Amino acid sequence: MAILERDDSGAIARLTMNSPGNLNALSDAMLAALSEEFARLAEDRAIRVVTLAGAGKAFCAGHDLKEMQAARQSEDKGRAYFADLFSRCTAVMTAIRNLPQPVIASPHGIATAAGCQLVASCDMAVAAHGTRFGVNGVNIGLFCSTPMVALSRNIPRKQTFEMLTTGQFIETDRAAQLGLINRAVEPANLEVETMTLAETVAAKLGSAVRIGKRAFYEQLELGLDDAYAHTGAVMVENMLDRDTDEGINAFLQKRAPDWQQ
Amino acid sequence: MAILERDDSGAIARLTMNSPGNLNALSDAMLAALSEEFARLAEDRAIRVVTLAGAGKAFCAGHDLKEMQAARQSEDKGRAYFADLFSRCTAVMTAIRNLPQPVIASPHGIATAAGCQLVASCDMAVAAHGTRFGVNGVNIGLFCSTPMVALSRNIPRKQTFEMLTTGQFIETDRAAQLGLINRAVEPANLEVETMTLAETVAAKLGSAVRIGKRAFYEQLELGLDDAYAHTGAVMVENMLDRDTDEGINAFLQKRAPDWQQ
Amino acid sequence: MAILERDDSGAIARLTMNSPGNLNALSDAMLAALSEEFARLAEDRAIRVVTLAGAGKAFCAGHDLKEMQAARQSEDKGRAYFADLFSRCTAVMTAIRNLPQPVIASPHGIATAAGCQLVASCDMAVAAHGTRFGVNGVNIGLFCSTPMVALSRNIPRKQTFEMLTTGQFIETDRAAQLGLINRAVEPANLEVETMTLAETVAAKLGSAVRIGKRAFYEQLELGLDDAYAHTGAVMVENMLDRDTDEGINAFLQKRAPDWQQ
Repeated sequence: MAILERDDSGAIARLTMNSPGNLNALSDAMLAALSEEFARLAEDRAIRVVTLAGAGKAFCAGHDLKEMQAARQSEDKGRAYFADLFSRCTAVMTAIRNLPQPVIASPHGIATAAGCQLVASCDMAVAAHGTRFGVNGVNIGLFCSTPMVALSRNIPRKQTFEMLTTGQFIETDRAAQLGLINRAVEPANLEVETMTLAETVAAKLGSAVRIGKRAFYEQLELGLDDAYAHTGAVMVENMLDRDTDEGINAFLQKRAPDWQQ
Repeated sequence: MAILERDDSGAIARLTMNSPGNLNALSDAMLAALSEEFARLAEDRAIRVVTLAGAGKAFCAGHDLKEMQAARQSEDKGRAYFADLFSRCTAVMTAIRNLPQPVIASPHGIATAAGCQLVASCDMAVAAHGTRFGVNGVNIGLFCSTPMVALSRNIPRKQTFEMLTTGQFIETDRAAQLGLINRAVEPANLEVETMTLAETVAAKLGSAVRIGKRAFYEQLELGLDDAYAHTGAVMVENMLDRDTDEGINAFLQKRAPDWQQ
Repeated sequence: MAILERDDSGAIARLTMNSPGNLNALSDAMLAALSEEFARLAEDRAIRVVTLAGAGKAFCAGHDLKEMQAARQSEDKGRAYFADLFSRCTAVMTAIRNLPQPVIASPHGIATAAGCQLVASCDMAVAAHGTRFGVNGVNIGLFCSTPMVALSRNIPRKQTFEMLTTGQFIETDRAAQLGLINRAVEPANLEVETMTLAETVAAKLGSAVRIGKRAFYEQLELGLDDAYAHTGAVMVENMLDRDTDEGINAFLQKRAPDWQQ
């Protein structure tokens, strides 16, 4: 079995982290597998939505601590390895934002530290009831500084700070209320519900979703006037797409669109 | 009947979009009417609060799709028209932020696409229970890229992304929970409740509300230290206002203020 | 009795504003006392967490209006005094962010205007049920322009705007829902619950919490890529801390860490 399984269903690529023995830790091998798969998906126009789940008892428990401790044996006490590791981890997290397709996290069990960051970094998240989320590195003396970048862009400030400095977990109802996940579902229905959301998005015009996702993250980092200048230009291009013309005509004529994409 | 009605009640200007036949679509005519009225209100010191409602079954259903499709007949396939249209629409949305008076949206029925953007762009919103909000352009192949600028500055990131890519509606309880509206009220009480909020704000010192609204949006786009430097200077000017002196004295003397403004 | 009492409990410094006669107003004397104490705490490595409460009926009712009005007697009508006052007040608020230790507000009764700003400026807040929060300066003609800087970075935009322009209070359930406080507790348990949270944080590795808090506020003001570049470097330094090495080893060996700090 591969450490990262991919099982396509129509236009949906279903990724499953498959290293249950270490709770799907973001080891060197897992990061490499995610990085390669995201690079492949970025070029794959047949795929419209990506889902990300974890095999076994947990979604993802963060970094591989044993691998990290082993790196301390080197002459620089691991400095170069750690710098490279966090750089590779960040590249995986930002690859999700950069992917043209929406990515839906589908966590269950546990999503901690960089595993919680993975959920926060996805565009949307459907979780199994009872999933526990935490940025608990502080418990072992390693503050979740990179995970907080993603988390603090999902949930309010004081609630992020509490999770970071207490290391305490929140469950799905709280995660949904705060904004970390879109919703929680019965564990038995996790895959079905995740696929339902994925199929809803996959049924939209692919080019529109693609330019929309890109513009979404770009405008978030701009002031209001710059954000409008940018997205106004995006909408003009969107309007000039042949399939958008067809989509609007179909709507006005109360019929289904005949999209070429 | 005008496409945009204005009915003043004391210091409150009540605007009603009045084009029920196309669900108060933001047609060229509606955008022009809103633009002109906002320009007039910006100079009107007698008006302290503005409310914005829609006549008929819906608050506003977004752009006028028939008008947009007609523009494709031109030699450039509509490019110049679309660029101008989104520019005019953005000017209306940002005019709300730039108005010296607070603007309260009072939606009912449906507020979709640029209609949802209009609600998000107002300073506050009181909605009729059951109002449906959506940025559903994706359903016809036109991603709501400009509406998302306003929406993503009102509600959390993942919840915005879901609305944008699924095209699904949210109702008032959810909208209030996420932050898109201040509260929902019984449909029969929508006008009364909106006016109650408007009158509460209109009873405050006009100059204080004016400089406060302006500083509010300015500081939102600054880092913490710059935001404090800016608002500190604003507070000094506020303190030197004759009416603020009177307001504080009245409070200390437990009497009503005698404001000149 | 000092205007600001400090009562240490192990590694926790418990500060209590003690001027019940004016509802712990942020007078010149109170601002000076807070400023001096925060400067002292910034150098005190034995203290890991700070709590901030108010003696008497209220947490803090904002600026000292009598003192402010008295300043109008000067030749410049108070301009220089007001500029200096807001500058000193801002310095106290940002000193909380700059302190290496997490600061937990522990409000009860009333937290209004700059008193509400104080709660918003703390890293976390545990409030007594029934505490009322407001930025109600607008009621006397003085818009809460500096308090809104902190408040609008805690709670959503429209809800901030409503509080600012209506002057209306919110209670603890609403404050917790919006994100202004972490939670509300029985008034009789306020001190115990605040201390429980403080002790939880104080038990973590001090150096990790210190660098984490600093990085938290730094990354909040950066775009995503810059935020990751910055926090990635922070994590490398964190990993190279001897105590973090020990913390991870202890976790892998299922034993308590032997931290030197």
